[in-house]
Amino acid sequence: MISIIHANNEIGTIQDIKSIGEICKAKNIIFHVDAVQSFGKILFYPEEYNINLMSIAAHKLYGPKGIGALYISSGTKLEKIITGGYQERNRRAGTENIPAIAGFAKATELAYSTIHAESQREKELRDYMETLILKNIPLVTINGDLNNRLSNVSSLTIDNTMAESILFNLDLRGICISAGSACSSGTLNPSHVLLALGHDTKMAKSSIRVSLGKFNTKEDIDEFVKQLELVVEQERNLSDLY
Amino acid sequence: MISIIHANNEIGTIQDIKSIGEICKAKNIIFHVDAVQSFGKILFYPEEYNINLMSIAAHKLYGPKGIGALYISSGTKLEKIITGGYQERNRRAGTENIPAIAGFAKATELAYSTIHAESQREKELRDYMETLILKNIPLVTINGDLNNRLSNVSSLTIDNTMAESILFNLDLRGICISAGSACSSGTLNPSHVLLALGHDTKMAKSSIRVSLGKFNTKEDIDEFVKQLELVVEQERNLSDLY
Repeated sequence: MISIIHANNEIGTIQDIKSIGEICKAKNIIFHVDAVQSFGKILFYPEEYNINLMSIAAHKLYGPKGIGALYISSGTKLEKIITGGYQERNRRAGTENIPAIAGFAKATELAYSTIHAESQREKELRDYMETLILKNIPLVTINGDLNNRLSNVSSLTIDNTMAESILFNLDLRGICISAGSACSSGTLNPSHVLLALGHDTKMAKSSIRVSLGKFNTKEDIDEFVKQLELVVEQERNLSDLY
Repeated sequence: MISIIHANNEIGTIQDIKSIGEICKAKNIIFHVDAVQSFGKILFYPEEYNINLMSIAAHKLYGPKGIGALYISSGTKLEKIITGGYQERNRRAGTENIPAIAGFAKATELAYSTIHAESQREKELRDYMETLILKNIPLVTINGDLNNRLSNVSSLTIDNTMAESILFNLDLRGICISAGSACSSGTLNPSHVLLALGHDTKMAKSSIRVSLGKFNTKEDIDEFVKQLELVVEQERNLSDLY
């Protein structure tokens, strides 16, 4: 079995799942795609790409939390991990969360209705943001594949800062960004994704992830970059003192 | 390990978890209680009863669907079944459903604030219903332990009827009851609970479960018994024809 994240959750890089799917088909390998980040943001075709299993989640496309789905291609056999009742055709026991299922369906419908226009809008906003940051804040690099990535994610390494401190100070100013993956928050380890890109631990710990969404505007970006500039300057002045 | 359902989901019988907990403690056996049906309806004390693990679910006490909780006593070690991120102290990976968690807490608070009064009210309503049914509909028996059961559940065997047909006809009249456990709906097997009580397959398939709730009134009961009487009569007349 091959299991691939379609779009990386920290840096947004999009994997060529079509080519991987061809290899899987030729070699008769079960192919699982984690499409949680990409579903509803970029168009792709599980059947055409020879995908056997695909994981998606509602809260990534403005649907309710607590609901996801597993696409299972015809003929792919699964062993269940949650046993008990016969719900979901005996594949996953437990009372179904009908309101969340309905919400997920509606959220998907809404996301697909504007998928191209919204992706384009977010990409322009993100590119505007990165240009502004590179112009106004010294020693910043953008991580990952700059051409082949999700339109709403930006991973930035800001030399001579600590990401946790940047986050904390931006939070005080009403701005929420992250230091990487939510799955790793609470751990003190540097991002394995950034280490795999060749960053050392210090650089990885100086990296932030900025995610844009359908409710963000150009004014938000202007305000964010202004506050980021202040916070980074403050942080660097402090580190000069010690 | 001993795993016991506190109150049976089909017939409402309450198990003596306090005594079982004493045995478990004396013999050093891990004790799990499925309290999904009883939590918020009857008072009990996991710590005092030597319970190591207890499962509960929000939707059984008017909270949101899709959220449950596992009580884990101090010192009880668990192997996780859902792996990945470090959420929930590394015990269950996946983005937490915060709105549902908050809703569950509020639902619990509300349930506990009226636990005695509401139990008593539902018990009186249930007893009134059963008296009315036994008086008006021939060949009905009540299943399970009549003294030691949840106040809101009634399991009835109605001779010479098919539960599925009763359900269907009541549904057409706007009344929702069930033929047993939701976990078994979709299967054609008779209830294992009723078989264990000594019912044969035919009797088990003539059994319905009626659950009352905080929104039910005496008028609902009167209407339900009236409709049930009509539906049972119709069903028995039909079975006489064939």
